[in-house]
Amino acid sequence: MNTYKAPLRDITFALNEVLDYESHLQALPGCEEIDSETVEAIALEYAKFCEGVLSPLYSVGDSEGCSWDGGKVSTPLGFKDAYAQYCAGGWPSLSCEPKLGGQGLPTSLAMILGEMPGSANISFTLYTGGLSGAIETLAAFGTPQQREMFEAKLISGTWNATMCLTEPHCGTDLGLLKTQAEPDTNGTFRVSGTKIFITGGEHDLTENIVHLVLARLPDAPPGTKGISLFIVPKLMPNAGSDELSENGVSCGSIETKMGIKGSATCVMHFDNARGYLLGERNRGLSTMFKFINASRVRAAFQGVSHAELGFQKSLAYARDRLQMRSLSGAKNPAGVADPIIVHPDVRRMLLTQKVLTEGSRTLLYELTKHLDIVERSPDDNKVRISSDRLELLTPIAKGFVTEAGCEASNLALQCFGGHGYIKEWGVEQNVRDARISTLYEGTTGIQALDLVSRKILGSKGRLLTDFIQETRSFCENSREPVEGESLNEALTAKLSEWESLGREVGERASTNPEEIGAASYDFLMYSGYVSLAYFWLRSALVARERLDQHSGDQEFYEAKLQSAVFYFARILPRTESHRSAVRSGADSLMDMRSADFAF
Amino acid sequence: MNTYKAPLRDITFALNEVLDYESHLQALPGCEEIDSETVEAIALEYAKFCEGVLSPLYSVGDSEGCSWDGGKVSTPLGFKDAYAQYCAGGWPSLSCEPKLGGQGLPTSLAMILGEMPGSANISFTLYTGGLSGAIETLAAFGTPQQREMFEAKLISGTWNATMCLTEPHCGTDLGLLKTQAEPDTNGTFRVSGTKIFITGGEHDLTENIVHLVLARLPDAPPGTKGISLFIVPKLMPNAGSDELSENGVSCGSIETKMGIKGSATCVMHFDNARGYLLGERNRGLSTMFKFINASRVRAAFQGVSHAELGFQKSLAYARDRLQMRSLSGAKNPAGVADPIIVHPDVRRMLLTQKVLTEGSRTLLYELTKHLDIVERSPDDNKVRISSDRLELLTPIAKGFVTEAGCEASNLALQCFGGHGYIKEWGVEQNVRDARISTLYEGTTGIQALDLVSRKILGSKGRLLTDFIQETRSFCENSREPVEGESLNEALTAKLSEWESLGREVGERASTNPEEIGAASYDFLMYSGYVSLAYFWLRSALVARERLDQHSGDQEFYEAKLQSAVFYFARILPRTESHRSAVRSGADSLMDMRSADFAF
Repeated sequence: MNTYKAPLRDITFALNEVLDYESHLQALPGCEEIDSETVEAIALEYAKFCEGVLSPLYSVGDSEGCSWDGGKVSTPLGFKDAYAQYCAGGWPSLSCEPKLGGQGLPTSLAMILGEMPGSANISFTLYTGGLSGAIETLAAFGTPQQREMFEAKLISGTWNATMCLTEPHCGTDLGLLKTQAEPDTNGTFRVSGTKIFITGGEHDLTENIVHLVLARLPDAPPGTKGISLFIVPKLMPNAGSDELSENGVSCGSIETKMGIKGSATCVMHFDNARGYLLGERNRGLSTMFKFINASRVRAAFQGVSHAELGFQKSLAYARDRLQMRSLSGAKNPAGVADPIIVHPDVRRMLLTQKVLTEGSRTLLYELTKHLDIVERSPDDNKVRISSDRLELLTPIAKGFVTEAGCEASNLALQCFGGHGYIKEWGVEQNVRDARISTLYEGTTGIQALDLVSRKILGSKGRLLTDFIQETRSFCENSREPVEGESLNEALTAKLSEWESLGREVGERASTNPEEIGAASYDFLMYSGYVSLAYFWLRSALVARERLDQHSGDQEFYEAKLQSAVFYFARILPRTESHRSAVRSGADSLMDMRSADFAF
Repeated sequence: MNTYKAPLRDITFALNEVLDYESHLQALPGCEEIDSETVEAIALEYAKFCEGVLSPLYSVGDSEGCSWDGGKVSTPLGFKDAYAQYCAGGWPSLSCEPKLGGQGLPTSLAMILGEMPGSANISFTLYTGGLSGAIETLAAFGTPQQREMFEAKLISGTWNATMCLTEPHCGTDLGLLKTQAEPDTNGTFRVSGTKIFITGGEHDLTENIVHLVLARLPDAPPGTKGISLFIVPKLMPNAGSDELSENGVSCGSIETKMGIKGSATCVMHFDNARGYLLGERNRGLSTMFKFINASRVRAAFQGVSHAELGFQKSLAYARDRLQMRSLSGAKNPAGVADPIIVHPDVRRMLLTQKVLTEGSRTLLYELTKHLDIVERSPDDNKVRISSDRLELLTPIAKGFVTEAGCEASNLALQCFGGHGYIKEWGVEQNVRDARISTLYEGTTGIQALDLVSRKILGSKGRLLTDFIQETRSFCENSREPVEGESLNEALTAKLSEWESLGREVGERASTNPEEIGAASYDFLMYSGYVSLAYFWLRSALVARERLDQHSGDQEFYEAKLQSAVFYFARILPRTESHRSAVRSGADSLMDMRSADFAF
């Protein structure tokens, strides 16, 4: 019942047909040789691994969870073997440089493929999630000695890595952090303090774990300007020897959580642990956040992973479960009742999942292309545009797509009725696993603030206007994909509204800064729905073209058109409520005294 | 961290100040003597029990859960003692007739009080939830011998009771059920079959459990017209003896569930178990569903319970947790940061919870008054109106308030950031526990179909028009509670829109029955938001009056006004999206072939 099937047809549709991924790759230095066939072959291979190795461990990871005993953390049965297969397959090094042992694929492809293990087994996937951030940070800021010491072991997955930011009293507000680093001999440092919520801080999958730890030097200024980043391995490598020595890093406990139970969330103690300064002193936040867009896009993909998994499960159930007759006459007269997929309200729940999943997938693919361009393109103009799009769309993607993942996974559960509440179908696990995604890597509220404050107001509206201009030109130059209604017109109207809404928020914020936070969440959700409409229009146009060309796969393309129509008819109107909420302003939120919220 | 404090101030505001509950009671035969002081004294006593006995067992119920061993089910540590105290306090018999050992209070009060244990410990509460339905059904349909045999033991809580409807292949579609009943000697029957999802089907709280079981007689017609209801005790009482004998009833297993883990959800086997026919042959569904409005209103209260609990927890956290500075200047300059309640987006999440909780509470109280009137009033006209209101508002209440409970509990979790995902705060448990409420007692989709099909179309719109007329007259005769904006006008406009929306659905349904299911969910949610606006307007008017009278408690009434303003500004506009979805019609849902939802 927990089987997962990688949605390869939809993945290749979005990649090849909507986004012309091959041309993108061929314009990318170092990727010119990668054609669609190669991409599809890799995707197929990874799909096999996810379906065959990770998916069978989906429910055992939840039932068994992790256990802590005297500082040692055990992962669920089967995870260790799966991790070994993951490394043996070369999957940790997909986007690493070939000269370092990597496969040299672009960031985009690693992220696009990452949806699949996220559906098959999100808990397992989190043990591999720290690697790419650590490898990237090390490659960008590490000294030759540091790279020599750690890089190869990380790229092969032999060692694992974490990011250690949060402390008990500070999550969002990192300026408050207290972990200390004292200079020691040989340019090393001694790090002491406690970090919490460290994903994979300790486990039994690898012999060593390399922690990237934010801490303060003795002379550091207060707040966020006094934070430095340190490499602190659990076990210290010794020059000229394979022996590793203990380094004052220990796991104090693991958290009991709502979901992702197969992933160990650790309290980590650093007790005079030896570490190396990575990047500049007091610039630790910007060092760690250099790849923040990439890590947020990666987190956004989890929304697609959860939505896809729930959609698959609930669709299979809705086709199979016989209950009641269709109001327009029996559809399965030979059976005792009709399959519940005939009922319009069940279809509403399935189609909502479908369009959120597929629309978000295409949006995120586009973002990964921008990441590639910023990383590799020699064309300054393209880099500038892609960088602008990333700035604007990343908080929208992280905030909106993870919220969509939660909604979709809950709709999947709802399709099962009471059976959805029972563990055996795996849909309630998916709801619980998905729930973390709107919290970590910056909550939805933080993404929303980032969008409105830093991105929209910070650019005086330019980032938004530029993107709207791109989408508006697209609409102007497009034909209509369906007869009888104008998706182009509907989107164009929304674009104008989006632009004025952004302007209105800016005007109000100029006299009252609370207007930013008051508008932010609803503005973000509004933006997400309009952005998805753009990608649904693009998908619909491709489908229309294919149908006109009679190029086969007719049912697939018709379903795409019908999905787009559903999106515009049923989902895009959600912008109306968010628009009204944005326009209602800050007063209704700020007038109440804190003491008066309850009596 | 799991402490619960009964919201007595808000409960008494809704009861005494908004709904004039005392006058209601005094017009009710048998309740004339019950004044506000009595009601408050009972509420205070029950609050103490919920806060002091049930709330401390909240997290242990979740951690420990129930266990099954060879057919025996053990409840979590402490539940047995709490159940004994519950019975000793006379709480099972609140609304039972005094001559049968009950306290003679009206149904309304039992339900209103029921919010509190639902917040303090929903899993425990579910062991008591079957009692009232069984007692009511027995009183209405039982023979004198049947009542003599079971009634007193149920009223005292000495024995417990369940409703056994669902079977593996049928939940919503009870016409498919297969459990058989064969006539036996002395007018008794032998019941055989398997039932699933039986709440409290087996446990260690009472020596005996009385099951009300739906089954088919040998000569019964197929479908829902061939179902009869039987009383099947786990242990059979023997005339003239206190001995109980085994009766072929056994618990095959208990479900592993997302939440309400302290409540045993049982697979029950009936193997030639002796039972008594309750009510008429082949009329089992209508016998069991005579109290369906009451049981759905009771389930709706769980939405308030969950919303209130999450609100309390997240409010306390938001006042305490220091993180970031207010954008309009430090509010807690002496501290390292400001409490997060200063941030507008956190306020949005808190206020949304608050207005959904308090608005739903008032709506449900009004419904319980209608239940009382239908049950007890000698005034035929009042009975007719109340019966109409119940028909219309019950599916709205069950569907909307339980959805609101899920939303609110998720917002509470979100206020905690990553900490909300950790078990220790109890907010993730509240989300998991709440999730069942939109599934059982008829899913939201089933409530929505009932609303649109049976209630709106079934009455040719009359039930809706009548209620709209009541609310419209209220608006016409009301002053404005706040300056500068017209809540009356806003609600009046929504009422007209609601009426036309109902008419439009009816017109479309007359040519295509699929339009009913296509509109139903969004029509239900639309109806819920408009109904809540009516109760918020009523609350605001009371608050305005009290403020004008300078009758003390100024902060409380000002907060009520501010909450109403927030509701109208931020929550009522959600109707806009639901309106568009309703108007979009059935085609975008029905056009896709079932085979084409995924490839």
